[in-house]
Amino acid sequence: MTSIAILGATGYTAIELIKILLRHPQATITALTSREEKRPVGEVHQSLAGRLDLPLENLTPQDIAKRAECVFCCLPHTASAKVVPELLQHGAKVIDLGADYRLDSVEVFEKWYGEKHPDPSRIGKVPYGLPELFRDKIAGANLVANPGCHPTSVILPLVPLLQSGWIEPMDIIIDSKSGISGAGRTPKLITLYPECNESISAYSVGTHRHLPEIEQILSTGSGQSVKVIFTPHLTPMDRGIFSAIYSKPAKPASPDELLSVLREFYRNEPFVKVVDHLPATKDVSGTNFVHITVRIAGGRVITLSVIDNLIKGASGAAVQNFNLMFGYPETTALV
Amino acid sequence: MTSIAILGATGYTAIELIKILLRHPQATITALTSREEKRPVGEVHQSLAGRLDLPLENLTPQDIAKRAECVFCCLPHTASAKVVPELLQHGAKVIDLGADYRLDSVEVFEKWYGEKHPDPSRIGKVPYGLPELFRDKIAGANLVANPGCHPTSVILPLVPLLQSGWIEPMDIIIDSKSGISGAGRTPKLITLYPECNESISAYSVGTHRHLPEIEQILSTGSGQSVKVIFTPHLTPMDRGIFSAIYSKPAKPASPDELLSVLREFYRNEPFVKVVDHLPATKDVSGTNFVHITVRIAGGRVITLSVIDNLIKGASGAAVQNFNLMFGYPETTALV
Amino acid sequence: MTSIAILGATGYTAIELIKILLRHPQATITALTSREEKRPVGEVHQSLAGRLDLPLENLTPQDIAKRAECVFCCLPHTASAKVVPELLQHGAKVIDLGADYRLDSVEVFEKWYGEKHPDPSRIGKVPYGLPELFRDKIAGANLVANPGCHPTSVILPLVPLLQSGWIEPMDIIIDSKSGISGAGRTPKLITLYPECNESISAYSVGTHRHLPEIEQILSTGSGQSVKVIFTPHLTPMDRGIFSAIYSKPAKPASPDELLSVLREFYRNEPFVKVVDHLPATKDVSGTNFVHITVRIAGGRVITLSVIDNLIKGASGAAVQNFNLMFGYPETTALV
Amino acid sequence: MTSIAILGATGYTAIELIKILLRHPQATITALTSREEKRPVGEVHQSLAGRLDLPLENLTPQDIAKRAECVFCCLPHTASAKVVPELLQHGAKVIDLGADYRLDSVEVFEKWYGEKHPDPSRIGKVPYGLPELFRDKIAGANLVANPGCHPTSVILPLVPLLQSGWIEPMDIIIDSKSGISGAGRTPKLITLYPECNESISAYSVGTHRHLPEIEQILSTGSGQSVKVIFTPHLTPMDRGIFSAIYSKPAKPASPDELLSVLREFYRNEPFVKVVDHLPATKDVSGTNFVHITVRIAGGRVITLSVIDNLIKGASGAAVQNFNLMFGYPETTALV
Repeated sequence: MTSIAILGATGYTAIELIKILLRHPQATITALTSREEKRPVGEVHQSLAGRLDLPLENLTPQDIAKRAECVFCCLPHTASAKVVPELLQHGAKVIDLGADYRLDSVEVFEKWYGEKHPDPSRIGKVPYGLPELFRDKIAGANLVANPGCHPTSVILPLVPLLQSGWIEPMDIIIDSKSGISGAGRTPKLITLYPECNESISAYSVGTHRHLPEIEQILSTGSGQSVKVIFTPHLTPMDRGIFSAIYSKPAKPASPDELLSVLREFYRNEPFVKVVDHLPATKDVSGTNFVHITVRIAGGRVITLSVIDNLIKGASGAAVQNFNLMFGYPETTALV
Repeated sequence: MTSIAILGATGYTAIELIKILLRHPQATITALTSREEKRPVGEVHQSLAGRLDLPLENLTPQDIAKRAECVFCCLPHTASAKVVPELLQHGAKVIDLGADYRLDSVEVFEKWYGEKHPDPSRIGKVPYGLPELFRDKIAGANLVANPGCHPTSVILPLVPLLQSGWIEPMDIIIDSKSGISGAGRTPKLITLYPECNESISAYSVGTHRHLPEIEQILSTGSGQSVKVIFTPHLTPMDRGIFSAIYSKPAKPASPDELLSVLREFYRNEPFVKVVDHLPATKDVSGTNFVHITVRIAGGRVITLSVIDNLIKGASGAAVQNFNLMFGYPETTALV
Repeated sequence: MTSIAILGATGYTAIELIKILLRHPQATITALTSREEKRPVGEVHQSLAGRLDLPLENLTPQDIAKRAECVFCCLPHTASAKVVPELLQHGAKVIDLGADYRLDSVEVFEKWYGEKHPDPSRIGKVPYGLPELFRDKIAGANLVANPGCHPTSVILPLVPLLQSGWIEPMDIIIDSKSGISGAGRTPKLITLYPECNESISAYSVGTHRHLPEIEQILSTGSGQSVKVIFTPHLTPMDRGIFSAIYSKPAKPASPDELLSVLREFYRNEPFVKVVDHLPATKDVSGTNFVHITVRIAGGRVITLSVIDNLIKGASGAAVQNFNLMFGYPETTALV
Repeated sequence: MTSIAILGATGYTAIELIKILLRHPQATITALTSREEKRPVGEVHQSLAGRLDLPLENLTPQDIAKRAECVFCCLPHTASAKVVPELLQHGAKVIDLGADYRLDSVEVFEKWYGEKHPDPSRIGKVPYGLPELFRDKIAGANLVANPGCHPTSVILPLVPLLQSGWIEPMDIIIDSKSGISGAGRTPKLITLYPECNESISAYSVGTHRHLPEIEQILSTGSGQSVKVIFTPHLTPMDRGIFSAIYSKPAKPASPDELLSVLREFYRNEPFVKVVDHLPATKDVSGTNFVHITVRIAGGRVITLSVIDNLIKGASGAAVQNFNLMFGYPETTALV
């Protein structure tokens, strides 16, 4: 049994994380933090009424580490990196669901996030928490950087095709559509129901912070420099990410060959399903699964993938990492 | 041609009002106010891009009255009543889309709205802007109190049945379901997309401010004291109100008899359609129409009505009143 | 380990049932039937791709009983009752998710469902599968009638208040709002996306087949004759039922007293949460939980309840019954 | 005053067309046809209750031409081309909202639509009903081919950039997202509410019938051979199309230069708005407007456009064409 603290327990990734951990036979949640909320978690999240009897608390890293062997950080950028050093020092293992430890360059982080990094010495040494690519590193780590939701939907379908030389690395266009929960739980005009319901729109065109993360992991994962264009869209649904990825074949290719490459790459992966049909985000809603397929049209490879942004794109992946770090079967609480 | 100002032009009723007035051949919008916004209206409301070239301004009542013969107030409660006296004094006619002049008792207003009324001397003298019941008074008025959205959906189906003695006035249960736009455009957690999408819930059970308004107009309109229970629900859709109203027949009644009473009452009304089928809010979405039907089951009369909360429940009714007050055909810009 | 067959595996209750059973450590699905589909289940339900490797088959009751110790029937009315006798005879236990065995009168069944009952001799002898009221009977049964979705949302909040004499049994108005999945997976105009999206409407006013079921179980459960008015609404969301129930207090009552009655009644129930706040269907979406609260307004008791129509209102309840019938902990696979 | 018939009056484009024409001061609807429906139109489309008193009828082309000077065909492909010759022969003017007369090659039509063309001699002689490009030809025509919805959203933003040589014609990727109404009103599993709600998916990847139409008009409109990749997506909303179009600049370009080209091209067009901000489909919902903007990222020109698929993408454009063909101001009933 592992004791668990969740920092920043008021948002959507935290709710989802709590629900998954309540099903986990070896996890017990012992602390939930918030800087502003002090109410019982069942009042802050009505869906937890009568299921978890803990208040939200404003705790120091030291207090947290006393109560929890594993700490999940669901905090805004730079907030994690301010507490992680102390958490580690007091013996906790940490899974950071934010962006602080994903990029391997302080300079790139500070350029895209516009703030000084509070813990620069660890940058570049923290495993990227995508078990399908970096399982061994994750298993031995004390700190893991949980991937961003869009990056997960893009990296998993592309890395096998890049690695095996089937597609060109420098001409990749990613058109992603994500549910509104991805924009967080802080009230804002653009995520107000009557603003985004019955409407689809692009945002952060060419400027989204997931872009450098995607390029970095695609490059690392495939052993070559990779450049992408990335356009996310706000889609009128709670959850889900659909990525349509347009790349150039590096050599003559058929859909069947590319599907085989993907199937072979993921043949032992419990959460990645390479499918023949065209997937829909609903197919994986509420699950840790990724569905991927490939088509060829007009001389381009079109790779299509779907995930649940809150599960495989955040809290499910985090529990997958937790299982690896603490020696539990990787699929525990996730199937 | 009538010049028009809209006060509080950042919200949903204002957008809808502007769109209707842009179709009105005798109306020209000359001023839009906001206390905080100063951008062009086409930036505040992207749907108006290139359609109306006006900035939002912070104007005094005197300035407003100089620019506009008719003023529509889309302001929070008590904000209208603070500027209306001066607007009238400077010669403007006013249609208040808020609640300040709907109730005919200062005491009731102050009890339900929790604030002192800024213009108590006018209370009880302002016509309630429901043309189907108070057309003559509206036509001759300088100030009209535009009805609340739920009250409109309830009063129109009930008044004919109450007036003609078919239903009991003291045992009426109203179960209303309204779209999220009814909650306004100020970002709040409860109207954030991922909170209210894929979910229905009741709110303000027994305490909604439309309750005294409903009881007052039902009483006035039917010439007897009427009491109701009123439960509104937040429904995952942009717009629309569906009211299911359970009353007791005062004498043996068939659905056909009650439908006839309603048809006779509204036979010359352009916007009220008494239908045989079960209506859906979508049937009247984007229109100024009201659809009403009646069923009898388990010894109760069940009256069902649908409106678009932003049109017949707000801005459409306001333009209907405007047409009456300025001598234009009542349906101008509304069909 | 118990082997399981699901009859009628193409619909929404079947998908949900399969997903729950895939998480059940003591259940193994061995047969899925359909009269028309023969494809692998992962093609019929894309969300099951790579998760369950079974085809849909057209099997005889005898073949089914050979493969499965427990049979879940997700069939249209009268279709279950045509195969249940043979399934039982061949030794299978059966949970019927349809309506065939819920009513205890052949006459009432035939009046409301318009067809001759194929297995009249069992009528009145089959336990109603609501564990919170009939746990002992279910545990010892070979055949259980799984409750309807609306009835579950109504019976659980009302029985404790009726049984203890706090509310009048003959003047109860039920206004229910349910998600579109409740209307089934057969393509029909009324459940086409552009018909029911952005719209709410009532249907089957006074004529819904869940009405006699509600009255029967409320009467049985509270030991007195109970009559209700029941109006269901089609709500633009996938899943969930919200029931607002208006009853008359039989004696002076406060909300706190009524909440206490409910809390006491359900104090040991794992799935029924009596809450102080106003619940929303999203609070229980995807779960087997029921949230209930009570208000008093205008001299009426207003009881509000929420369930997920596909889980507690169908497949979750069915697995709860399965756990009881086969001696597994009641919450297995459900929390 | 022009008399109007609508053929195939049961679908979504027909409803929308009727609503627009009811606002048109010079149009009077005199006939509505359906092969199967004979009910009054107000029963088939509840939103028209009490607004239009016409039955649906099964009429011959001759009867139709007797009653109507202008015929709008809202028919499946090949159905229009079977009746158009006779309608024209009897003196009616025709606007075909289907695909029969859009392509200028019988061979291409028969390849993509899989059926023999019933009226091949007219192919290549019918103006494409996009007034912004072909106004003069439309004004003088007796038969106009109303554009497809996706093509409209793609052609308007691209033609000015192609024509002026700013972008490469042979490397264009179009990622479109459209509302569910685009899939028609015939009940099908994929457009059932619980299938497509809360989900986004691609369909007809590389095989959509709008592809050859897009390529043809882009080529004609820009005077060069143009090739595109086209991926449509089914988006969980009633209406709207969002097209994100990725092309290669033919010479160094800034967003401002490209916006200027578009602004100049459309400076006198009443329905095309070139905007600085990122548009959303809701901005143009229920209107005949098109909003277009441009960004440059990663060395690609990203053109973004939004339309309402049922209005500018179908019935609004049809009325725009009607106005041109009959000499009414082009914006009548459309603003």
